Amino acid sequence: MRKVAIIGIGQTSVSEHWEKSLKELAGEAILATLSDARRETVDALFVGNMLSGSLNRQENLGVLIADWIGLRGVEAVKIETACSSGGSALRAGLTAVASGEMDSALVVGVEKMTDAKSNVTTAALATAADADWEAAQGLSFVAINALIMRRYMHEYGWQHADFAPFSITAHANAVSNPYARLPFIITESDYIEARMVADPINLLDASPIGDGAAAVFLVPADDVVQTSHSKGRPRVTIVASSSATDTIAVHDRIEPLWLSAAARSAQKAYAQSGIEPTDIDLFELHDAFSIMSALSLEACGFVERGQGPRLGLDGEITLKGRIPIATLGGLKARGHPVGATGVYQVVEIVQQLRGEAGASQLADPRIGMAQNIGGSGATIVTHIFKAE
Amino acid sequence: MRKVAIIGIGQTSVSEHWEKSLKELAGEAILATLSDARRETVDALFVGNMLSGSLNRQENLGVLIADWIGLRGVEAVKIETACSSGGSALRAGLTAVASGEMDSALVVGVEKMTDAKSNVTTAALATAADADWEAAQGLSFVAINALIMRRYMHEYGWQHADFAPFSITAHANAVSNPYARLPFIITESDYIEARMVADPINLLDASPIGDGAAAVFLVPADDVVQTSHSKGRPRVTIVASSSATDTIAVHDRIEPLWLSAAARSAQKAYAQSGIEPTDIDLFELHDAFSIMSALSLEACGFVERGQGPRLGLDGEITLKGRIPIATLGGLKARGHPVGATGVYQVVEIVQQLRGEAGASQLADPRIGMAQNIGGSGATIVTHIFKAE
Repeated sequence: MRKVAIIGIGQTSVSEHWEKSLKELAGEAILATLSDARRETVDALFVGNMLSGSLNRQENLGVLIADWIGLRGVEAVKIETACSSGGSALRAGLTAVASGEMDSALVVGVEKMTDAKSNVTTAALATAADADWEAAQGLSFVAINALIMRRYMHEYGWQHADFAPFSITAHANAVSNPYARLPFIITESDYIEARMVADPINLLDASPIGDGAAAVFLVPADDVVQTSHSKGRPRVTIVASSSATDTIAVHDRIEPLWLSAAARSAQKAYAQSGIEPTDIDLFELHDAFSIMSALSLEACGFVERGQGPRLGLDGEITLKGRIPIATLGGLKARGHPVGATGVYQVVEIVQQLRGEAGASQLADPRIGMAQNIGGSGATIVTHIFKAE
Repeated sequence: MRKVAIIGIGQTSVSEHWEKSLKELAGEAILATLSDARRETVDALFVGNMLSGSLNRQENLGVLIADWIGLRGVEAVKIETACSSGGSALRAGLTAVASGEMDSALVVGVEKMTDAKSNVTTAALATAADADWEAAQGLSFVAINALIMRRYMHEYGWQHADFAPFSITAHANAVSNPYARLPFIITESDYIEARMVADPINLLDASPIGDGAAAVFLVPADDVVQTSHSKGRPRVTIVASSSATDTIAVHDRIEPLWLSAAARSAQKAYAQSGIEPTDIDLFELHDAFSIMSALSLEACGFVERGQGPRLGLDGEITLKGRIPIATLGGLKARGHPVGATGVYQVVEIVQQLRGEAGASQLADPRIGMAQNIGGSGATIVTHIFKAE
């Protein structure tokens, strides 16, 4: 397998893009990516998307977008693993290029969620869970996460306020990100007083949905040559890629507070790359709900089991901390256009590794990890990136 | 890239399976496949499906099915390219195994369509077309194909009855297939007198929808050893795999009667394998409508442009003809559970190459080609298989 590099990135803002269709959003991110990569053609297009059938009455997204953006004729597919569709699409594109089957691939994550009424969107999001055993009981996706968070607080003795740093940090990091959906500061009292959504998850524990698209351009790393354009810009390579699953329904898990798919996926990625958690300079994790940040940090070996909130309380997750997360806002403040999120995470890591992250720039990061979750810990995809 | 072999196949009947859920259908096909392959575990699951979001209120199909069938923890994704989702899923699984990224893969195509009312299903199928420029005009999927067929008859001077052999042959071949949806003989007068659906497409030009699942098990060809179980059974390998796209909307094509994606996809497959149309012993093509059989045969080089119906009239597409098609019923009579169809085609080719096709068995076939179409010629996936 060949080593693969990311030579182009692009994104739209995460917002309510009522004036743009699904293909227009994807096209905007792709055009920016082609321009950044200085390429005009590509061998194949991999689209990460979850809800186009439910919310946009459109399937066959691969050819729809390829045709629209002027890449007519190229191979094109949609990959779906609920909210980890973006990460899964990256993994598919990576395998195609690493194997030599293709010499270049565009990966785009796109989702358009805000045209529908909120009850329709809530029902659509529940399709990430087990329709027969979870959704049919009236459990919305936030309700499933609320049950997990309540149990976690009970088992480990945390108070709701202990989770505040996850949301406060994400919002602080988003302020200077022009693509973020909620680029404003929140305080601890904002967090504590926020309106309840599904006890104990309140509005500031939950990431906002949105419309958006993000894309990356992949080529074999050996093809990357220094040009005047790329001079001084590090080559960003993908050094690990791994995906694992758990049970789809949370009630089937022996340990519902342990993200076993995150643990397995991360362990495999560490083994592939020889990288350890202490080597990682930033971790774009899947903070769809603040409880998920805690569980991901634990499963990936950054803190012992049950102690996720400790990292926030000790200031370890900020831009100056031991393991910065949500460095450009994360799902919580950049926004969570579900099938696109996994690609946004990667775009942001590339921004950090290139030194293009503006006011949220970390000091000389070399290694970044992205983790994308589909369902309540059901499908988990982990990638590690390195600046060389 | 390693050569890959198919060591297991399985399928459910195509029918109205009101008593079985999506995951139960997929599970039935997978269990049969694991049993046929004499395997109990696999590295990854690739699911081909188009409509689970629209019709079954369920996404995250990969983990849903992996969990249900006892393959808990394995990597699992859904691949969607409308009605060619099954072929695209095979191509993804093949790339994973051929590249060495995985040592085994299960590919399952599954679709459950008959629980919904027919107008809901018709609207869902229209999501394969361009929502903004085709579906929004009230064009159903059959209506788009009717416009193509009418234009073809006008351009090349064919009468409706000239297409009868496509449907008659498919139904004749399905009679002995226990998995077929419509396993009965039809006559030329049945065909001519059938109820009109969208002029000139009548009921016997159109394939029936259905519920069903089909699966194959992939391993590196070098891993295949002769056992007492497999003795005398040829090793079936995949010698070519290719996918291409056209415009999604038919009105954007300079030549709307030429399946350019089929031509490109087939030419690439021929180049990969060194196989020519004259070498091919059977062709499982995408006969969703009889006009599509004619166009596929032309684009893949079996007959000159505009002369597709000639092959039927001359008896060349029957089991004893020059290029047998729909050998176990095709989409027309085995049935067309859309996202599953591409995998059914492959299962049937393996049945033929192994000599397990019952009364529809061809005389010693060595090379089979499958072609799966998503949308009105928008996404086209071609695979070639060889018995060794």
